[in-house]
Amino acid sequence: MKTPKEPDLNSDDLLIALLKNAPGSHISGEEIARTLDMSRSAVWKKIKDLEEVGYEIQAVPHLGYRLTGLPERLVPEEIRFNLKTRALGRRIFIFPTTDSTNRVALDMGRKGAPHGQAILAETQTAGRGRLGRVWNSPAGKGIYLSVILRPKLELAEVSKLTLAAAVAVAETLEDAGIDGVRIKWPNDLLIGGKGRKICGILTEMVAEADRVECVILGIGINVNSAQVDLPPQATSLKLESGKDFDRNALTANLLSRLEVRLGQVTGAAWNKTRAAWNQRSAVKGKLIKVTTMNHSVQGIAQNIDPSGALIVKTKSGLKRVLSGDIVL
Amino acid sequence: MKTPKEPDLNSDDLLIALLKNAPGSHISGEEIARTLDMSRSAVWKKIKDLEEVGYEIQAVPHLGYRLTGLPERLVPEEIRFNLKTRALGRRIFIFPTTDSTNRVALDMGRKGAPHGQAILAETQTAGRGRLGRVWNSPAGKGIYLSVILRPKLELAEVSKLTLAAAVAVAETLEDAGIDGVRIKWPNDLLIGGKGRKICGILTEMVAEADRVECVILGIGINVNSAQVDLPPQATSLKLESGKDFDRNALTANLLSRLEVRLGQVTGAAWNKTRAAWNQRSAVKGKLIKVTTMNHSVQGIAQNIDPSGALIVKTKSGLKRVLSGDIVL
Repeated sequence: MKTPKEPDLNSDDLLIALLKNAPGSHISGEEIARTLDMSRSAVWKKIKDLEEVGYEIQAVPHLGYRLTGLPERLVPEEIRFNLKTRALGRRIFIFPTTDSTNRVALDMGRKGAPHGQAILAETQTAGRGRLGRVWNSPAGKGIYLSVILRPKLELAEVSKLTLAAAVAVAETLEDAGIDGVRIKWPNDLLIGGKGRKICGILTEMVAEADRVECVILGIGINVNSAQVDLPPQATSLKLESGKDFDRNALTANLLSRLEVRLGQVTGAAWNKTRAAWNQRSAVKGKLIKVTTMNHSVQGIAQNIDPSGALIVKTKSGLKRVLSGDIVL
Repeated sequence: MKTPKEPDLNSDDLLIALLKNAPGSHISGEEIARTLDMSRSAVWKKIKDLEEVGYEIQAVPHLGYRLTGLPERLVPEEIRFNLKTRALGRRIFIFPTTDSTNRVALDMGRKGAPHGQAILAETQTAGRGRLGRVWNSPAGKGIYLSVILRPKLELAEVSKLTLAAAVAVAETLEDAGIDGVRIKWPNDLLIGGKGRKICGILTEMVAEADRVECVILGIGINVNSAQVDLPPQATSLKLESGKDFDRNALTANLLSRLEVRLGQVTGAAWNKTRAAWNQRSAVKGKLIKVTTMNHSVQGIAQNIDPSGALIVKTKSGLKRVLSGDIVL
């Protein structure tokens, strides 16, 4: 992975940081103006801008401004505030609506967008899953994220990024207090005994026959969706916990978790990520049927092996499965 | 590969066929009008259209029309006339100029263009080779072709398409009377003892992590280029033979040869194509250094193995090389 330059913080990022870190929770317009090196009226204008995107800010005479609520909608500055990454999400484009964040990211990637650039949308009109399937994207209730990656990997190793991303999403959900997160090979995150789907991952790439140009990691998570927003076999963080979640904070943590795990797909670090995946396997020990392009394999699912292939114990011995669709 | 429907011949295709197959070489306007079920004046209009794209047609009173010359420029009807394919080139888009036929084809492929659709350009303003290198595209003197493929192959097998295409191009050049065609692994076609480059192949793809969506096979051939049009280490069919070539006929034969070889990348047929490749290897038995992403391998080049990897005999034994750049 390329090492990017340090993030460029703009004055909105700084103002948000000032409000969040204000001692005694109020900060005067004068102090903000001095710190950001701008006029009092420019500060007032910026406060209005923040209110516009959904920040709740109380203005108290003689005391100053106090942050009383965070935006519900996705806001780049709010995501960046909690971001612990060097590259992932340091550039973020958020669309109110788009056809598919993966489509946008693939176009941007082919035009040279840097490693780590992220695309989010409040809703997608043609969100896609693997094998051309539809992904439901109820407006304002999920995280529909695509990240542009420029990994130094062989073509055959790219599927490891999907597996690493699945681990990172599982960790993000666990950080949010969701129990029983399981990964259905290769790319679905399921919850609980009934195995209801909470997240899907679609990894796409543009490559020469022997060289990866860019990879688009697409992640869809059902966050605050109600059952009526989702297909019957799907669930959301809210349905599982009864709580609403701050999608900005969740996205920031997701990007942070992703950066760590995507950096652990080669060498000894890969064994760590692989172990974390195998630990959460939804299929291990179960009778499965995998349908691949030209044939199907039936047997008991084992771990994923160092190459990222799923090992299946069949009547005629162990088989490695590199692609395909699983039926339990 | 998908089996496409039979080609749709339009009235231009039929008129060209009539002119070419006319007994005694003249065909009357009346006979054309009857055969194509159109008026005499519509025939006259169509003849003018063909002249417009470069056909030379003699009109002799009382005898009718006679074809006396073929267009120099690339013309879909003229390519189709000689095409012996089911899918490749049955739909052709020819651009007077474009940035890169591979770029156009990749966009069309992602929007669902069918297997076999071909894009040609008289010149490219940003023609590309492997690893982001420049490909020179002098106007009207080469074949700059990109074909959209939807192969049923695993990701790791896509590089075999490049190898099969290299064999097809070699056969096309040999059909045109060019001797000593050699293939420099993985994608360059060289001529003669000095190994001057006559063709480059750039295979690109859009894929999910474990499933190929579409492959763009880009082929650039120096046909009628003079030395001044080309980099010093390059050559052309004209430079090698002293003759000018009909690019339409050459393109038709190339597409026909491609369809055969691209259909021979799996099973027993692959061994035939592989043998044809190995026979023409420019590197076999030579001391080479291959620079790959993370390291380099030095040794004596052997054959390509069934997976499409180049075998290199190094001091520490045989090594398989899947990607990289060769220095002799």
